[in-house]
Amino acid sequence: MKRLLLALLLASPLAGRADEGMWTYDAFPSDRVARKYGFDPSTAWLDRARLASARLARGCSASFVSDGGLVMTNHHCVHECVEELSSAGKDLVATGFLARTGADELRCPAMQVDQLLRITDVTKRVHGALAGLQGARFNAALYAQKAAIEKECQGTDPGLRCELVELYHGGVYSLYQYRRYDDVRLVFAPEFAIAFFGGDPDNFMFPRYDLDVAFIRVYQGGKPARTADHFTWSPAGAPAGALTFVSGNPGKTERLLTVAQLAYVRDHALPDALERLAEERGLLTGFQLTGPEAKRVSTSRLFYNENSVKARRGQLAALRDPAFFATKVAEENKLRAALRRDPAKARKYLPAWDRIAAAQVRALSLEIPYDWLELLPSGRSRIGGDLFWMARHLVRAADERRKPDGERLKEYRDTALPSLADSVTSTAPIDAAYETVRLGFWLEKVRERLGTDHAAVKHALGSASPAEVARKVVAGTALRDPAVRKALWEGGAAAVDASKDPLLALARAADADARAVRKQWEDEVDSVEIQNQALIAQARFAVYGRSIYPDATFSPRLSYGQVKGWKQDGREVAPFTTFAGAFERHTGSEPYALPKSWLDAKPRLDLATPLDFVTDNDIIGGNSGSPVFDRDLRIVGLAFDGNLASLGGDYGFDDSANRAVAVHSSAIVHALARIYGADRLVSELGAAPAGAAGAAPPPGATRSTK
Amino acid sequence: MKRLLLALLLASPLAGRADEGMWTYDAFPSDRVARKYGFDPSTAWLDRARLASARLARGCSASFVSDGGLVMTNHHCVHECVEELSSAGKDLVATGFLARTGADELRCPAMQVDQLLRITDVTKRVHGALAGLQGARFNAALYAQKAAIEKECQGTDPGLRCELVELYHGGVYSLYQYRRYDDVRLVFAPEFAIAFFGGDPDNFMFPRYDLDVAFIRVYQGGKPARTADHFTWSPAGAPAGALTFVSGNPGKTERLLTVAQLAYVRDHALPDALERLAEERGLLTGFQLTGPEAKRVSTSRLFYNENSVKARRGQLAALRDPAFFATKVAEENKLRAALRRDPAKARKYLPAWDRIAAAQVRALSLEIPYDWLELLPSGRSRIGGDLFWMARHLVRAADERRKPDGERLKEYRDTALPSLADSVTSTAPIDAAYETVRLGFWLEKVRERLGTDHAAVKHALGSASPAEVARKVVAGTALRDPAVRKALWEGGAAAVDASKDPLLALARAADADARAVRKQWEDEVDSVEIQNQALIAQARFAVYGRSIYPDATFSPRLSYGQVKGWKQDGREVAPFTTFAGAFERHTGSEPYALPKSWLDAKPRLDLATPLDFVTDNDIIGGNSGSPVFDRDLRIVGLAFDGNLASLGGDYGFDDSANRAVAVHSSAIVHALARIYGADRLVSELGAAPAGAAGAAPPPGATRSTK
Repeated sequence: MKRLLLALLLASPLAGRADEGMWTYDAFPSDRVARKYGFDPSTAWLDRARLASARLARGCSASFVSDGGLVMTNHHCVHECVEELSSAGKDLVATGFLARTGADELRCPAMQVDQLLRITDVTKRVHGALAGLQGARFNAALYAQKAAIEKECQGTDPGLRCELVELYHGGVYSLYQYRRYDDVRLVFAPEFAIAFFGGDPDNFMFPRYDLDVAFIRVYQGGKPARTADHFTWSPAGAPAGALTFVSGNPGKTERLLTVAQLAYVRDHALPDALERLAEERGLLTGFQLTGPEAKRVSTSRLFYNENSVKARRGQLAALRDPAFFATKVAEENKLRAALRRDPAKARKYLPAWDRIAAAQVRALSLEIPYDWLELLPSGRSRIGGDLFWMARHLVRAADERRKPDGERLKEYRDTALPSLADSVTSTAPIDAAYETVRLGFWLEKVRERLGTDHAAVKHALGSASPAEVARKVVAGTALRDPAVRKALWEGGAAAVDASKDPLLALARAADADARAVRKQWEDEVDSVEIQNQALIAQARFAVYGRSIYPDATFSPRLSYGQVKGWKQDGREVAPFTTFAGAFERHTGSEPYALPKSWLDAKPRLDLATPLDFVTDNDIIGGNSGSPVFDRDLRIVGLAFDGNLASLGGDYGFDDSANRAVAVHSSAIVHALARIYGADRLVSELGAAPAGAAGAAPPPGATRSTK
Repeated sequence: MKRLLLALLLASPLAGRADEGMWTYDAFPSDRVARKYGFDPSTAWLDRARLASARLARGCSASFVSDGGLVMTNHHCVHECVEELSSAGKDLVATGFLARTGADELRCPAMQVDQLLRITDVTKRVHGALAGLQGARFNAALYAQKAAIEKECQGTDPGLRCELVELYHGGVYSLYQYRRYDDVRLVFAPEFAIAFFGGDPDNFMFPRYDLDVAFIRVYQGGKPARTADHFTWSPAGAPAGALTFVSGNPGKTERLLTVAQLAYVRDHALPDALERLAEERGLLTGFQLTGPEAKRVSTSRLFYNENSVKARRGQLAALRDPAFFATKVAEENKLRAALRRDPAKARKYLPAWDRIAAAQVRALSLEIPYDWLELLPSGRSRIGGDLFWMARHLVRAADERRKPDGERLKEYRDTALPSLADSVTSTAPIDAAYETVRLGFWLEKVRERLGTDHAAVKHALGSASPAEVARKVVAGTALRDPAVRKALWEGGAAAVDASKDPLLALARAADADARAVRKQWEDEVDSVEIQNQALIAQARFAVYGRSIYPDATFSPRLSYGQVKGWKQDGREVAPFTTFAGAFERHTGSEPYALPKSWLDAKPRLDLATPLDFVTDNDIIGGNSGSPVFDRDLRIVGLAFDGNLASLGGDYGFDDSANRAVAVHSSAIVHALARIYGADRLVSELGAAPAGAAGAAPPPGATRSTK
């Protein structure tokens, strides 16, 4: 038994490193935690942790922290809401926000909170339906399965949301059923200056001095929701070495990709993304020079952009590191060698790698039109602006809703429509100048990347220039009014077809080309990758058993670890910072200018109170807002970042350097009580007065390591 | 003999392809031209071509086209001058410029024209002085040699400029003696809209419809210079298949780099440059939104930026092409294998590759501080803006001029100082808002790339933010006034040290860190590369003889070739376009809007007149403005671009697709006569009336291939 275990550890580096892994709740390795930390999480404990955790639909994590619907997350996860609730005269991003009473809580125009109720393994059903299919037929069957399974699960309850989660890149299919809260209100957000103290220069760095926290509340029927399952509060937090759990929704890792896929990411996807982000970043910076309104409306996007740039640089650095890449090659070779020893397995599994490699060549020839016509303007990056994004989805939804559920593009399936409707009809204000710049930028890049003579460019621009089209369309559209969008959404195809709105006309003119290249991409790249990754997953199970965790998929995961510094360039980085360190780093100049509230409160603060800390929990983007908690399910911190080394976490986990960065539970209560006078909140959290925690910093606390 | 020749061709792919090569005037392969084209250029012919050719010191090529000092080059080579001669009410970039009389010719504030008088081989002297030295001592000796040799050559004649040219990356040293003209005046520039018709989207593309031409004139003693050596005019140009020569100054190629160096360029230098350029591009685009003045003062830089982006994308595409890279690996392996067959040669030469590979590792660890502290702000890219560039050189020149000539940094050697003084004291207007943005951008990136806690960042910023420093320094400096800079330059160290100007203070604060990393780079990267490249060059000579040409070094070269289309995606691209094609491509929207002068003149034009054409001459950036001429030394065109495939020309030449793009000689005269009424110019060119050329288009002329 012991020999077998050792063999497994040697054979699978993924499973061999301490505290590594983003585990699903239905396959958490409690035995490993017990062996290392002497605590064996029970099923009841896991259920409670799962139900006390939450997901923000737009891409963050959160936790329930009272029975009255109070939810804790990061400031940067609600930044967009705070921006949307602001206006020219009232900049809540700058001033912060505190609802003194329940009546003061402000609804976020486009925010949804999900709570995971149930996980069901449906692998057999899905694999059965896909057997023997390829390309377009494989995709059609997979689409149909997803639609049918999610619909059955969701039933007629509008408060449920079901998702078929593709784990191990298609090796396992799990059905996740969530309760969805879509009335979400802002309770507290500190000033941006302290939420993001140190700004982009200190992003992904530690020591760190950020109070990146926000509280929101979920409502049902106009009243605070009852949330029996919630975390409690640890006023003192966790000392160095203490066991910590992080529950959250890591967005995406690519640790199980083949070497051919990783090489594509290293040589094409990441450098190209960096170039695109860099230009957008410069454009936003320049646009902000046009005036304070421009700055206000584009700050959250610039912040998101800079975060992406730094993250991708770190990812690229990892993949460009020859030693790291060699470990990925060695892992792959080891698995393939194991398969080669069994002729049946070799026949079944080895061709999967070649087919995936061939799909990378195809991807290279499709990526420019696919990225620029389809992925970037339609997806999360909304590169053509919010207005174009809404128009595209209005036009497409009108078409797609005419089809049977299982034949639609995935974002228009019945289970996905309510969420899309919320986003398309969002009441968040829309700035015309900003939208003109974004739409013009996208059209300009489309022409640049595809060439003036490409048919799709001619369809979108006619004989006008990108800037002219953007100016005319944004000036002429009625879609800035949410009521107009709502009427179009509800009116469906008839309303959309009848409209003469120039923005809808542009979206229509650009639709067929985008759909065509998406279909090529899905049939010739996506389907090949999914199908053959699933084969490789099975091969991995066949050789290593189920001892490995799946890549991140923005679905709930649990990681374990401990409060722990690390060694960088030969120097020990201590795991804690304090309020004192923040005042030392304050220069008075952005981004190192503490807000006035902090400067005023300084005499009232216990400067030895811990502010931020690090653990070796395995997290990644999407985990922002995750609760850090102890074995008693008490909040000891709030994850908001990883260190620089954690950026390589997309492709592998290095226990010696990869760290999660969190706000300390003491800091949150200390600031709420002593700086913000947020007694209502402190009391709802059931936290002891902050003084108690502040008196004795945990061992290892430091002011600054540099 | 025949067998030997064949072996050489097989062994050295560089020499094996038709019409490849950027040859020095003292080693032009007349015999190859004679074999292929039946014309054997004599020494007298070569001398005449050399003396009729010119270099613009800031990075372009040109030609003398009359005996009265008239010089022809590209519009994009004088764009900066045209911008500098403009002002808020008078935008010569938009309107174009024509001097109706000599008195109307306007002096370009910072333009110099060089004519190559003599080439002397000094390899033995330089190699002798470097023998046995390494690192810092190698560099010191090389600096001292350069200073001494150039000074001897230049003597006391201020009209001479001497440069030691490092050919074959140090395998050969040649001394180039130029006549320098520094009173240069603008004679004619068309509207930007036709000079750069199609803009960035059509840049590096063909078919093409640009009149990218300008005329300037060199003066001596306040009068037009006498230029007996000049090209004459061919009103009809050259037909398809005709032999063409291009004489110019290709800036830089890297065809002789080792595989380790090429991998560094592919994986680091080019992607990093693209990311930086992309952000600057976005910033300039955004800055231009702040108003028409912002747009006017930054257009030439944006144009230069976009040109660089597209060029680097093409270079990267070439290096990322596995087949192309494999040819470079094969070339290197072949040479190494040949050396390995001779133990003495193997011992002497093979370690050079390993030492260069080790230098790449060192480069990787130094590149961020070296690029951001030294290369980018001090060099051609002037990333911190013109003001900071001037301040840096004022501060440094004051220090360096105290040292003996041979111990100075190279740009402060006595031979280089006059040119630097011209640039530092340039009277071109300086826009404060623009400079603030550029300086702020640079400081921001320095902090981002080096980190807030880096000593160099603290020296430059103190406790202020990059934007604050930029604002205060630009608002507070007196250096926008050229008279102040002139006084500081002439006052030397005493004046600079005594000044309290905040811009000089910033330049002083940032100097030591930049100098330190430059020294590391030069000692540990540059010197290793030069020394070992020189060894490899000798190895190449030992195996292949002197049948190969050196990499480009922005010094005069001559290439031969022919008017010739190519096959792209299975379709023939014809070698000529016509005026008719330009009118067909006109949409009225930038960058496809012909200027009013063209629309008005349309009835007077012969639309069948050829406009642009392509040849297979081997050229690269720096060749812009090069004359294209026939065996009778008559101008048949004006090179202004390469096609997309030519962008891979940095690393190799593909005869089947690499094309130079030129304005046709007929087009220039036709436009001058029929559109611009520039009779004085037409007559000075000695060109026949344009009608004669326009009547019969050469065979192969086409309107458009798409």
